[in-house]
Amino acid sequence: MTRQELIQQIREKQSFLCVGLDTDLNKIPQCIIDEAKAKDGDDYVFRALCEFNALIIDATAPYCVAYKPNLAFYEAYGVEGIMAFEATIDYLKEEYPNHFIIADAKRGDIGNTSKMYAKTFFEEYDVDALTVAPYMGEDSVTPFLGYDGKWVILLALTSNKGSQDFQLTTSPASSKGGEPERLFEKVLKVSQQWGNEENMMYVVGATQGRMFEDIRRVAPRHFLLVPGVGAQGGSLEEVCRYGMIPGDCGLLVNSSRGIIYASNGDDFAEVAAEKAKELQLQMAALLK
Amino acid sequence: MTRQELIQQIREKQSFLCVGLDTDLNKIPQCIIDEAKAKDGDDYVFRALCEFNALIIDATAPYCVAYKPNLAFYEAYGVEGIMAFEATIDYLKEEYPNHFIIADAKRGDIGNTSKMYAKTFFEEYDVDALTVAPYMGEDSVTPFLGYDGKWVILLALTSNKGSQDFQLTTSPASSKGGEPERLFEKVLKVSQQWGNEENMMYVVGATQGRMFEDIRRVAPRHFLLVPGVGAQGGSLEEVCRYGMIPGDCGLLVNSSRGIIYASNGDDFAEVAAEKAKELQLQMAALLK
Repeated sequence: MTRQELIQQIREKQSFLCVGLDTDLNKIPQCIIDEAKAKDGDDYVFRALCEFNALIIDATAPYCVAYKPNLAFYEAYGVEGIMAFEATIDYLKEEYPNHFIIADAKRGDIGNTSKMYAKTFFEEYDVDALTVAPYMGEDSVTPFLGYDGKWVILLALTSNKGSQDFQLTTSPASSKGGEPERLFEKVLKVSQQWGNEENMMYVVGATQGRMFEDIRRVAPRHFLLVPGVGAQGGSLEEVCRYGMIPGDCGLLVNSSRGIIYASNGDDFAEVAAEKAKELQLQMAALLK
Repeated sequence: MTRQELIQQIREKQSFLCVGLDTDLNKIPQCIIDEAKAKDGDDYVFRALCEFNALIIDATAPYCVAYKPNLAFYEAYGVEGIMAFEATIDYLKEEYPNHFIIADAKRGDIGNTSKMYAKTFFEEYDVDALTVAPYMGEDSVTPFLGYDGKWVILLALTSNKGSQDFQLTTSPASSKGGEPERLFEKVLKVSQQWGNEENMMYVVGATQGRMFEDIRRVAPRHFLLVPGVGAQGGSLEEVCRYGMIPGDCGLLVNSSRGIIYASNGDDFAEVAAEKAKELQLQMAALLK
């Protein structure tokens, strides 16, 4: 999906919501587990994961423009988990071809190995975007950039407490002059020599508040994937005040637990739809 | 496996070689592919990967103390690849229980998600060690540290060209005094508040030469996993001169392509054994 197509979806839906499919068998409603066990006995994992995801997707699709399954949750169930990840991607592509699909995998390795990951996610699974870790530098990132309509979403300033350990480390002004810069700013600057606003986004946590101003100073036109609204405590309003690009939006705000686990009763899909709709309405107002 | 047990293996084998199982169907000998196809037709991938790995393992086991499958190469084949990864781990644990198994996956996510990865690799696959990326900081790493006899191998100074982009970024002396430090040095220092030399190693590329002196200044007792000997051009002698810990060795030197693809004829296993033995003999001399 191109940048223009994504912006078009955001305008039509009046939403820049991404729903995180962090599907954990210990957290999904018992009714899903029971039903899957009734049908498949001990081999219930695949069905339970797929069934839950499909119901959450059907319920929330009108209110969001993107889905983001996090690979950690699928790999945890071995082969059945990977099959459920594949089946979820297939379901999305078939039923909701206008939704943007992000594989949240935070990959990154030496060039020859990153190339294998790129093939996996962009050729085999054929998702729109992959989250990538920047620590290993250029040759670990560029193999993901050679695909039309596909995106690298590079970690810049994450939502977790540990983001302070290294991402805020300040280095002095370079020999070429300029201001001292923090590591996340260096990641933003340097990576713009590898990709552009048509094939690269950045992860910036909603918990970072006014730091979005600093991000926009360095990356004024790039889309940002923003986790951390909801369970992690970030404020949607603050993110938009400092991070939104007038006209183009430039944000994909993710909520996972706050939507998919809002209820663990039989009404989980309805409640997920309500929570997604609440966010969509706030987003519609903020887009004006 | 504990640090003492690993050192014991190194002493007995007179080797600190790790063989990288980066198994790529485009590079393994045609005879393996043909045989797997003859047996399983179109579903030959699983058998081809397992068969190649088993033959390489049988050939090289006398000369190495560790194996390191890189997940990128298995994920590339979807479910069949993951099954082959699992089967390879099972084979190693059954046939060669004294070999140290490293899953090279370079994972790392927010705490709650890293916990899922930790369960996958340390409970489900039950490998000895996992490579982890440091960019997201403390809560992305500590979930991997709560397992007896299991190891985090944290990226510090990698072997690839891109290691220069961020890992060498220098920050000034901290307010508490001390020298200016580069990012990889900060990773080494800060992470020693999370883990210790019994549950944490570091990745340092063999291509980094004298930088091993700087590493040892900050991490004198930690084991280092050293990729980049062979295909990537690093020197074993230099690594040992500046990186070895007298008595404890403190190094696991990895070779992947230089061993497993040394021949792509029918004699691939024999040639792999020869290449591994060559390295083992050099290592035995360097251990003296």
